[in-house]
Amino acid sequence: MAEERTQVVIVGAGPAGMLLSHLLAADGVDSVVVETRSEEYVAARIRAGILEQSSVDLLTEVGLGDRLVRDADKHRGIYLQWPEERHHLDFVDLVGRAVYVYGQTEVQKDLIDTRRAAGQVVHYEVSDTALHDIESDRPSVTFTDADGVARRIRADVIVGCDGSFGPSRAAIPARESWDRTYPYSWFGILADVAPSTDELIYAWHPDGFALHSMRSESVSRFYLQVPNGTDPATWSDDQIWDALATRLGHGQNGWTLQPGQITDRSVLPMRSHVSTPMRHGRLFLAGDAAHIVPPTGAKGLNLAVADVALLAPALTALLKGDPRLADDYSDTALRRVWRCTHFSWWMTTMLHTAEDPFDTQLQLSQLRWVTSSEHAAAGLAENYAGLPIGF
Amino acid sequence: MAEERTQVVIVGAGPAGMLLSHLLAADGVDSVVVETRSEEYVAARIRAGILEQSSVDLLTEVGLGDRLVRDADKHRGIYLQWPEERHHLDFVDLVGRAVYVYGQTEVQKDLIDTRRAAGQVVHYEVSDTALHDIESDRPSVTFTDADGVARRIRADVIVGCDGSFGPSRAAIPARESWDRTYPYSWFGILADVAPSTDELIYAWHPDGFALHSMRSESVSRFYLQVPNGTDPATWSDDQIWDALATRLGHGQNGWTLQPGQITDRSVLPMRSHVSTPMRHGRLFLAGDAAHIVPPTGAKGLNLAVADVALLAPALTALLKGDPRLADDYSDTALRRVWRCTHFSWWMTTMLHTAEDPFDTQLQLSQLRWVTSSEHAAAGLAENYAGLPIGF
Repeated sequence: MAEERTQVVIVGAGPAGMLLSHLLAADGVDSVVVETRSEEYVAARIRAGILEQSSVDLLTEVGLGDRLVRDADKHRGIYLQWPEERHHLDFVDLVGRAVYVYGQTEVQKDLIDTRRAAGQVVHYEVSDTALHDIESDRPSVTFTDADGVARRIRADVIVGCDGSFGPSRAAIPARESWDRTYPYSWFGILADVAPSTDELIYAWHPDGFALHSMRSESVSRFYLQVPNGTDPATWSDDQIWDALATRLGHGQNGWTLQPGQITDRSVLPMRSHVSTPMRHGRLFLAGDAAHIVPPTGAKGLNLAVADVALLAPALTALLKGDPRLADDYSDTALRRVWRCTHFSWWMTTMLHTAEDPFDTQLQLSQLRWVTSSEHAAAGLAENYAGLPIGF
Repeated sequence: MAEERTQVVIVGAGPAGMLLSHLLAADGVDSVVVETRSEEYVAARIRAGILEQSSVDLLTEVGLGDRLVRDADKHRGIYLQWPEERHHLDFVDLVGRAVYVYGQTEVQKDLIDTRRAAGQVVHYEVSDTALHDIESDRPSVTFTDADGVARRIRADVIVGCDGSFGPSRAAIPARESWDRTYPYSWFGILADVAPSTDELIYAWHPDGFALHSMRSESVSRFYLQVPNGTDPATWSDDQIWDALATRLGHGQNGWTLQPGQITDRSVLPMRSHVSTPMRHGRLFLAGDAAHIVPPTGAKGLNLAVADVALLAPALTALLKGDPRLADDYSDTALRRVWRCTHFSWWMTTMLHTAEDPFDTQLQLSQLRWVTSSEHAAAGLAENYAGLPIGF
């Protein structure tokens, strides 16, 4: 078995893993990244599209902001609507922070390009990844590389950035987890058409939730609440545009929805999951490996960035002999995780059609509240635009 | 059958009905009140104990504030706690409004004394109350009075202030209703002991919710979350004080709970209910006849006051030939009803022990949020201290 040694092995080359390798390198800490998928797959997968102010600030501060600052579309807030009513929440006015439309694919591209230029070692398309001796000071990760060579990387620390299905979470014994599944999914539609709105529209509708998002000046992103198990192929393009027009309020108060060529469609389940602790021995978890949020409220990627922003200085200090930040990492990170878990659950349950008519009225009462009370609006805004990292 | 005539027949002599008779009289509108219970029963029943700022302002403005201003205990806010943590929310700092400890029994006494002095006709201990011709301009109420005499009161308008079980709500055809029952009850305890706190303590605890309230300098009021169907006689005094000490945090951070003689104990179920519309023809509903909230957050009495404050000028205008406020009454009142219904549901579900561990974490995350974010705290405060009447 081929052996190598580094300071930190990072399992997973998504945004959490790649950003961590970047932050560690800036602190003089070496890392090796291992990833089961190909670089092309990781770079192309369509995920989140909204960055919080603090995510943008962090990425910019660490030299990852060149394209971001140029290409990201700054949004002052969002629209919240229900039939006959559309209200704008201005996060900048409410809490002094904005959000930015910049796809996860773009963040990933910036990270790949920057890390490649810096000579970062990333093993793509590995298999049989396994974690060893995480309770010792000399843990290691074994895997078979893309050429079929069995490898072992010894390190001081392993970080699991390998999502829900990777081996890292499962390597933590005596873990506790919390789950919530939702009785609906998001039908995601990508279309080659200029957005019909300047900022995102979150729409409550008796037929189900709809979201009008965007990727660029010429690419729109839409989501429709659909029953779990919906096959996207069973919806015709006309059915999709009709449903979007109805739920988003085409024709109300002079607003119109412009349809276009649909280029991608997929159905995403909705789930909340938190696994604790986020550290065991010399294994640390970050991002989806420790927690999943439903997409309503756009917290997933931002939470991964916040985890990694806490973890990098904690690991740097640990490797220099000071374990305090590393010892606090799990508890500190989980404060934000639970805040975002609550916020994502709240946005989800407030906006998606409910079974129980009493819940429906609670939804409408809350929508009226957050669009008429400055305090309620600011409470939503501070969560959506994102609390400061390390709050 | 003995017949009499008035402008408004009010069914129910609780705080809603008696306050309405007072407000109508101030506008020169005559009313007759009918009530199935005795005056002593209505005066003695122990219900709510917290008045919102706007309820106090209204009662004071209409000449019902003499004892209230002298005896009510002004509270700047509440304590929210969970094990090892107690936080004060200062509503005056947050939203410029306070709440007042003044029992519903005291409000009722002020109303009875004031209306008696003004010569208000109230038929107590009536039976067989029935509403007639509510879709006409000449509705009437029939009943058998305390002396066994069958009576009919003809009027221009009937107002149902007769709670959940009275005949008024049932007289509205094609009504729609929304319900939520909760899987727990409140075990209410009245004790002859000085309160161990200056303001109310709302305590989340793994054993169940507890509330430390008070009635006076020498009378404390406590509530314990218990399973539905709990028989209060099965709890010994020691068990009650032990449970209160544990859930309220006796011994933590130097705080102690002083036990005393228990003088009353009862178990109250928790329920949310809204019935619409709140008006049909010449019948209007106010207070518990149209809506029930669980007691967490102390909205029930205040919501009844707010209904009546809207209704009195609407009826006065209607009787003078202007139907606009009366036509708007149901929709206008229901905006506040649903706001309070949501708030009461929120306080209830945030503070009472949940079955699902994910819900437990959502509760703790929200408690940390409302005690650390000024926006979240102000959102709670504006609801608890009460939105302006007619908002």
